Amino acid sequence: MTTLSQISTPALILDLDRVETNLRRMQDRATSLGVELRPHIKTHKCLEIAQMQRDLGCSGLTVSTLYEARVFSERGFDDLTWAFPVILNRLEEALQLAHGVDLGLLVDSKEAVAALEETREPLRVWIKVDSGYHRAGVDPESPLARELAERLRDSTTLRFAGLLTHAGHAYNTRSMKELAAVAEQERSTLVNLAELLRSSGIGVPAVSVGSTPTMSVVEDLGGVDEMRPGNYVFFDLMQARLGSCSIDDCAVTVLASVVSSQPGAGHCVIDAGALALSKDGLPKVDDGTSFGEVLDAGLPGPPIDATRVRSLSQEHGILDRALEVGRRVRVLPVHSCLTAACFDEYVVVRGDRVLDRWKIWRGR
Amino acid sequence: MTTLSQISTPALILDLDRVETNLRRMQDRATSLGVELRPHIKTHKCLEIAQMQRDLGCSGLTVSTLYEARVFSERGFDDLTWAFPVILNRLEEALQLAHGVDLGLLVDSKEAVAALEETREPLRVWIKVDSGYHRAGVDPESPLARELAERLRDSTTLRFAGLLTHAGHAYNTRSMKELAAVAEQERSTLVNLAELLRSSGIGVPAVSVGSTPTMSVVEDLGGVDEMRPGNYVFFDLMQARLGSCSIDDCAVTVLASVVSSQPGAGHCVIDAGALALSKDGLPKVDDGTSFGEVLDAGLPGPPIDATRVRSLSQEHGILDRALEVGRRVRVLPVHSCLTAACFDEYVVVRGDRVLDRWKIWRGR
Repeated sequence: MTTLSQISTPALILDLDRVETNLRRMQDRATSLGVELRPHIKTHKCLEIAQMQRDLGCSGLTVSTLYEARVFSERGFDDLTWAFPVILNRLEEALQLAHGVDLGLLVDSKEAVAALEETREPLRVWIKVDSGYHRAGVDPESPLARELAERLRDSTTLRFAGLLTHAGHAYNTRSMKELAAVAEQERSTLVNLAELLRSSGIGVPAVSVGSTPTMSVVEDLGGVDEMRPGNYVFFDLMQARLGSCSIDDCAVTVLASVVSSQPGAGHCVIDAGALALSKDGLPKVDDGTSFGEVLDAGLPGPPIDATRVRSLSQEHGILDRALEVGRRVRVLPVHSCLTAACFDEYVVVRGDRVLDRWKIWRGR
Repeated sequence: MTTLSQISTPALILDLDRVETNLRRMQDRATSLGVELRPHIKTHKCLEIAQMQRDLGCSGLTVSTLYEARVFSERGFDDLTWAFPVILNRLEEALQLAHGVDLGLLVDSKEAVAALEETREPLRVWIKVDSGYHRAGVDPESPLARELAERLRDSTTLRFAGLLTHAGHAYNTRSMKELAAVAEQERSTLVNLAELLRSSGIGVPAVSVGSTPTMSVVEDLGGVDEMRPGNYVFFDLMQARLGSCSIDDCAVTVLASVVSSQPGAGHCVIDAGALALSKDGLPKVDDGTSFGEVLDAGLPGPPIDATRVRSLSQEHGILDRALEVGRRVRVLPVHSCLTAACFDEYVVVRGDRVLDRWKIWRGR
């Protein structure tokens, strides 16, 4: 039996007990809220985890890239939403994929609808709506929202899939009350627009919402058909700070070891840098940015004397405390999606026992 | 003939003319300064570029990980320095590599020297010295520096390679004068320590220094034997700001396209996010952080109306100006090392003409 202490550093450790709990809890939430769960696999990029999500009853998957769509469709996941505004120079590739699987595409512009129309293919098309994040998506109160819906309704080839949003501004909230308000805004913006369109004779087949923070706290999804959270499979420091989870729900950590610790320096260096943790930091923690919390290398527990990763270069991580050279630690990442995308595989464990290694499909 | 306009987005574009110029210029600098060049390949992770560096006369290569050491050694690069404090739990792996190639290892602690001694192998060992960056490396004025050197001198198996440093604090300088001062500090700290050790009977075979900023401006490397810059192959916005290069020397860009642009929004979204550009930002540019400058998609030229990438999420990049959906742009990255590590391959071009695709060995 291989144990964690035999694994070389750096390595990405996946706590299977926690993943199972996280997956089950979100599926149960979706079921009890009366919606389908279509998890976003950009967080894990892992076939084994997608299979677990399917076994628990998810309706299909959400992907962020055509690469993910191709990898997962080639292995039997045949109901996918590419939750990114369609890239016009890759339509040909999307069309080829859409012949083999049920592939939902997103549009939020006239240019994109026109390009999809020109293909003369029966593509399934969602309208991406801005529910307050103001990144992408049509303004629900603008004439554009209605115009795109009318064009999809009137298309002889395209199939209007419905309205879709991602309340990314949930990540800027500072209290559970604010977060709950964003969750309700996400729901009501979409449901109100759907009702408006329906009242003027435009059939809206479905309403899709979702981010891990909003879906972790929302208590009413009336009028919504599906949710698309992704990060909940692992959670991370950012999610714990937002209130989506507790620290004990976080399911991936970076196993690392101390490689340099100078007498009197007050810091040390680990072998997990920006290419292991990503440079996503939690801003303004006490006196600086945190790039991760440092836990004991054994069973996940509380941080070692509140030690954190205070800065990162390509392969070096700097801890704000001196630990001895050779000591093994686990770093709880700030943003598990970007951290997972740094590695080729998960080392899958239950407690201290290594069960397997699962590939991370991190191509582009 | 394939041209850039036929390449799908996002893609990492390598301007071969510029790479050739950058490589030649640094090799010429090394030669005229009387030192060997041992380029750090963590920037490009690319066999074709390493071959160009060898053809120009570099003495060997510097790597940041054992993965890089393995990949490059298996393809005939047999003189490598692993410029990272040796990871004690991976000594076995390092030993196996050292049987096939001349592999230099770094130490800056008693623990590491003791572990290397225990192997009873004739490993070549550098002492990593802190020349002012205060990340890793022994304090040159501490008793530890002398103690490690004595232990290496007295070892019956280990071979003392010399003193090595990386003046990473060059990245914190704010003027050419400050940068030049760091370059001289990097040199003099190491040369002075070497002389001190030699004067007390400890042979110091070599002195190795280097970062791209310091090696781009240094005018005297008296007493130094080799330099190890890496980033100079590509340069980037950070290097241009420091004064290591001009914008016109920057040799990699991310080809991207606009996927969302809402009426009246004042911004747009491109298909290059944190997993294409990395989250390394240039802080405090005017009124915010820049994650890249946005150029025309054709031949590299000046930024489009001073447009920049103002924020990033996993697959989305937000520009601070509205461009039309479908428009293709090239983004000049802030940190080319981390950007290259996001991709599987370079699309190699001369001007607008696509010549080849080169693999990026970005494993761990």
